[in-house]
Amino acid sequence: MLDPRWLEALTAVVDESGFDRAAQRLCLTQSAVSQRIRQLEEHLGQPVVSRTQPPEPTPAGRRLIQHHRQMRLLEQELLGTLAPAASEASYTRVSVGVNADSLATWFLEAARPAVEAHRLLLDIRVDDQDYTHALMRDGDVIGCVSTQTVPLQGGECRFLGAMRYHCLATPAFSARHFPHGLTAAALASAPAILYSHKDDIHSEFLASALGYHGPFPSFRLPSAQGFLECTLQGMAYCLLPEMMTTGACSAGRLVDLLPGQWVDIGLYWHQWRIGSQVAASLADTLEAYGRANLRPSAEQPAG
Amino acid sequence: MLDPRWLEALTAVVDESGFDRAAQRLCLTQSAVSQRIRQLEEHLGQPVVSRTQPPEPTPAGRRLIQHHRQMRLLEQELLGTLAPAASEASYTRVSVGVNADSLATWFLEAARPAVEAHRLLLDIRVDDQDYTHALMRDGDVIGCVSTQTVPLQGGECRFLGAMRYHCLATPAFSARHFPHGLTAAALASAPAILYSHKDDIHSEFLASALGYHGPFPSFRLPSAQGFLECTLQGMAYCLLPEMMTTGACSAGRLVDLLPGQWVDIGLYWHQWRIGSQVAASLADTLEAYGRANLRPSAEQPAG
Repeated sequence: MLDPRWLEALTAVVDESGFDRAAQRLCLTQSAVSQRIRQLEEHLGQPVVSRTQPPEPTPAGRRLIQHHRQMRLLEQELLGTLAPAASEASYTRVSVGVNADSLATWFLEAARPAVEAHRLLLDIRVDDQDYTHALMRDGDVIGCVSTQTVPLQGGECRFLGAMRYHCLATPAFSARHFPHGLTAAALASAPAILYSHKDDIHSEFLASALGYHGPFPSFRLPSAQGFLECTLQGMAYCLLPEMMTTGACSAGRLVDLLPGQWVDIGLYWHQWRIGSQVAASLADTLEAYGRANLRPSAEQPAG
Repeated sequence: MLDPRWLEALTAVVDESGFDRAAQRLCLTQSAVSQRIRQLEEHLGQPVVSRTQPPEPTPAGRRLIQHHRQMRLLEQELLGTLAPAASEASYTRVSVGVNADSLATWFLEAARPAVEAHRLLLDIRVDDQDYTHALMRDGDVIGCVSTQTVPLQGGECRFLGAMRYHCLATPAFSARHFPHGLTAAALASAPAILYSHKDDIHSEFLASALGYHGPFPSFRLPSAQGFLECTLQGMAYCLLPEMMTTGACSAGRLVDLLPGQWVDIGLYWHQWRIGSQVAASLADTLEAYGRANLRPSAEQPAG
């Protein structure tokens, strides 16, 4: 039988990125934390976390942390049922993975009803939309907004809706860099923006909409609002979510460089199937918001 | 003598987080990239990068990458002087570390004149303001916005100005969680927001302004705009930069929970002293903007 205190120590060490901070959080000495983790490792006959800075869980460690988070969530729900008055001052911590554009547009507003109804504290991890899934698979989050259409084994997934992206720039940037439109020569020298080295949406758009497969200069800017600001400042052009830019477009501050072309990104809510009321309610809340506020499906441009 | 192609391969592997992507970027085969890195390691007699996914540079590898970036910057400036016409279509890539709040408020507007004058492509890394310095020390960036007041050895630093933070919430949140003000009992149960586990500004503010040293529930949200949005949604209260919130405050959407109390964060621009015209110009541009738009000094509240 696994002692829950071992798992609590392991989870704290990984969450807090260190044995000392974990000890602080658990109000224990550092040697007590180390001892609990050593006992866990002896019980299992294998290491669960590296002694590096920051400590990294082993594959077994990740599965244990994920298990611990799920058990905690179910336990907190049970306690809420047994003694609602006693638990009123307490919160349930839920870790979720969200892509930066969803966080910058709809996610917080969508999650609010579930956050308030269940007194949730969200622990939000941000990553590229094609990688939030990995956070869930690794046990870092119990659910995520992802572009992946297939549920993980032991998980479920629901379609939330699609976000549409247009290729935008200021009128001045467009006049200076694209006087003859988005020609290959102009694309090779006009600065774009990439979120990170994992961000392929821009190059895929240039390939699918324009048949352009060459290199292009780019800023790297890991911030959704940074994309918008950098574009509004006239330093670059990029694909921006319709949800963030309708105001700037109708005010004439940004123009669509390729009217009739766009990218629709379908978004799915994934979560582990653990029979948690809180997780189910969060999923319902997000799905209802998505159906009312996101696009009902990802569409291809006609061209 | 170090072959610059070795350093180029090492830098690409780390920047692109993989040998395969590095090979793509350099238009080489993956085995050519591996061979260059092996040659570098044989020349130095020590490893420069781990064969993990993603590859991590060793301490020696980090210093080599930093050296390579500085040499590239000086070389690009030299080429710009020698053949201005030929380099007109090319850009100079400059990696900088910026704290999330500066990026969300003043940084891009401040950097724009230097970006346009020198045809820069910014490669922006975002971290907590107390940690951008580490990005520079590790050789990941050539300059950074930091709270550190002392220059690194071989580096220089300039005061940019201070950003002021007020403790804000919606009127409804304030009425619900702080009906009797920011009492210890209320602080122990009202949700705050932390940027990450490295973020101490909130707990330091509660200690200095209110003498409160206890625990408090918190969302974790690694996004400056996310802080504002989560607060506007009435899910939490937090310290927010004046530069982001004057509109919401004067519209009555947010209220100051502790009028007369604030936190001023002094910001410094750090960069390596490498005799680069571009780096000097970027520093001048940021300093001039800071003097005109940030607070001239960090002040303590009178209380």
